Amino acid sequence: MPFGLSAGAVSSNDSTRAQPRKGERTRSAVIGAALEFASRVGIEGLTIGALAERMGMSKSGVIAHFGSRESLQLAVVERYAEEFIDEVLRPALEAPRGLPRLQDILERWLTRLAREIELGCLMISGATEYDDRPGPLHDAMVRVIDGWKGELRRAIEQAKEAGHLAADADADQVVFEIYGLMLMLHQDSRLMHSPAAAGHARAGLSRLIDAARRPASLATDTPFAGAAPATERRHPAVR
Amino acid sequence: MPFGLSAGAVSSNDSTRAQPRKGERTRSAVIGAALEFASRVGIEGLTIGALAERMGMSKSGVIAHFGSRESLQLAVVERYAEEFIDEVLRPALEAPRGLPRLQDILERWLTRLAREIELGCLMISGATEYDDRPGPLHDAMVRVIDGWKGELRRAIEQAKEAGHLAADADADQVVFEIYGLMLMLHQDSRLMHSPAAAGHARAGLSRLIDAARRPASLATDTPFAGAAPATERRHPAVR
Repeated sequence: MPFGLSAGAVSSNDSTRAQPRKGERTRSAVIGAALEFASRVGIEGLTIGALAERMGMSKSGVIAHFGSRESLQLAVVERYAEEFIDEVLRPALEAPRGLPRLQDILERWLTRLAREIELGCLMISGATEYDDRPGPLHDAMVRVIDGWKGELRRAIEQAKEAGHLAADADADQVVFEIYGLMLMLHQDSRLMHSPAAAGHARAGLSRLIDAARRPASLATDTPFAGAAPATERRHPAVR
Repeated sequence: MPFGLSAGAVSSNDSTRAQPRKGERTRSAVIGAALEFASRVGIEGLTIGALAERMGMSKSGVIAHFGSRESLQLAVVERYAEEFIDEVLRPALEAPRGLPRLQDILERWLTRLAREIELGCLMISGATEYDDRPGPLHDAMVRVIDGWKGELRRAIEQAKEAGHLAADADADQVVFEIYGLMLMLHQDSRLMHSPAAAGHARAGLSRLIDAARRPASLATDTPFAGAAPATERRHPAVR
């Protein structure tokens, strides 16, 4: 399953896909409707009964395609990851390696996020649904996010190799900060209806990339409290 | 109600609080148990029945204190905000105005977040529970987050007035980026179990504060795509 958003998943393309049979088309349509539904109500809100009603199908008809609710939920997470790769990563691979490709990825991610701000995001709601609930869905969420972080890291490393970013830029640090800006953009727009959120996210991305172009600017051994004399700290630092 | 985390809420202190009566003490204990429960199961998972069972009370006993499930949920959000202010903001007011106080606030927020990474965070799960569900709980979430952003903005403005941060630093931009780092720290630690998350959050905060000390470094009119030649953009920019 392409949860890992691996290079293998990216190398397959439409021309190599065989025409699906009718059963596969129905299954695919059910997954599409389930993804749209789950984006609003959460993966845990996705039940066979509610989905069957929305699709005008019988519950047994839905079960025939998936076997269990969990299999349906896993298929929905997998579809989300496929769509994300198709929209955000695959077209950006046409941009030149390095900073142009990284920026193209971020631009397409912002475009997708603008839609998810309207419709809800399966991965953001799922992150809090499954963060303390072990099992196959938790593991699938982690694989998708880890896979996406890996793709971002790869684009950043290529930008370093191309000389577009500083050779000592910490790719994991850049990934962490990009992700934080995207999470805040989602919350600040969707919950808080802040009209300034997209501008703040873009300014943050711009500042982050500028910093990653300067050697030693992202050194992670800078102590957080080092910028000014701090008051006595009774609380131990987070490690 | 102190949802807004206003200066008024902060100015009250323990010595001015009257001894609570027994009914108030019971109500307070029920809210405390409900907050701990809701931090794990979400505000929507909080039912009168489940709470009564946990407290060894009858359902009618719980209802007598709150009237409705929604009143209980609102009291839990209010308690969360009070505890957050008591832990993160109130003690930091003893630090000198300006950067020392801002850094003390952030240090105490990191300390609290470390606990919420273990126990769950009502506001982060609540943000996705209520982002598309209008009503009193949605409004309470928004008020708490808006109030907290206002307190951060105030600490940043004071640091500018004290000459610790550049006079042209964009306080809203700094608040947005701080919040993004905290959201990512929560997700990366709690869902992804990343041991590097706290270090990345601290490095990001350090870099952000360093940048806010330099004039014009946080200018928000920098176009995101301006750092390098970009490929053709078929997707409109997010506004």
